[in-house]
Amino acid sequence: MAAAKDKTLNDLFLDTLKDIYYAEKQILKALPKMAKAASSDKLRAAFEKHEGETEGQIERLEQVFELLDKPARGKTCDAIMGILDEGKEIMSEYKGTEALDAGLLAAAQAVEHYEISRYGTLKQWATQLGMKDAAKLLDQTLQQEKNTDVSLTKLAETAVNLAAAA
Amino acid sequence: MAAAKDKTLNDLFLDTLKDIYYAEKQILKALPKMAKAASSDKLRAAFEKHEGETEGQIERLEQVFELLDKPARGKTCDAIMGILDEGKEIMSEYKGTEALDAGLLAAAQAVEHYEISRYGTLKQWATQLGMKDAAKLLDQTLQQEKNTDVSLTKLAETAVNLAAAA
Repeated sequence: MAAAKDKTLNDLFLDTLKDIYYAEKQILKALPKMAKAASSDKLRAAFEKHEGETEGQIERLEQVFELLDKPARGKTCDAIMGILDEGKEIMSEYKGTEALDAGLLAAAQAVEHYEISRYGTLKQWATQLGMKDAAKLLDQTLQQEKNTDVSLTKLAETAVNLAAAA
Repeated sequence: MAAAKDKTLNDLFLDTLKDIYYAEKQILKALPKMAKAASSDKLRAAFEKHEGETEGQIERLEQVFELLDKPARGKTCDAIMGILDEGKEIMSEYKGTEALDAGLLAAAQAVEHYEISRYGTLKQWATQLGMKDAAKLLDQTLQQEKNTDVSLTKLAETAVNLAAAA
């Protein structure tokens, strides 16, 4: 590892890549639990779909590690642990209530926004560092995450929460 | 507190309001440290500006508590603790390096995205629950957070990170 004062944007890029790689693996573990907890079929289907997408996103990150000629390795990401812990809390505190799905959706949207922020940053750094192929891979995931957020927002605006508010 | 099975969207709204109230107070504590750490004058100014905005956002949350006739009280938010911890890690690991500002900006954008997700959710629930005045206050903050994210993205795309990539 570079000595503290010599650290560059390349080091920061790699550190952040490890952070999101760890985060994606935690999200992949959490999604089936969230799908199982969901009352609404549509919400369950959305979580299941995103589980498949997350597998693809992990593969893309592994391709970026390869482009850097570095082993794909995660680094504990406190942020995602905190965000997912809040989701677990919702699942336990609102189990069996009419508000559970609304809470699950909100938790999933917090996860999406964390990912959008991280992939946006990584894509931009890759561009600045002249890593075109990496930037392209990161952008693919970024667009996918943004689409997922839009789908979750639509779900939240329609059936799922309206049931809770009725 | 309502018994588990009786919990409604109103309870979830109040719980989430307490969560973001706690988060905003933590952010208010973190911003002067981030401003002090920043190398770029523009980034420091952006953090200082957002400190003032955060004070206003806390006041708006207190108005929402008042509308609900509930005491303004925070509830430990694991998500923001994790996100801010990552920012602290950057400040210590990248202190004195050319990549510090890029890392601080990325940390601030992760914070903004968490807030955007929470205020988006709260505004929507307020609307569904027929709380028009609360929805309006929450929307004011939501728009402010979105503007802050746009400003930070512009900063990231220009001077701050380019220096690090040079």
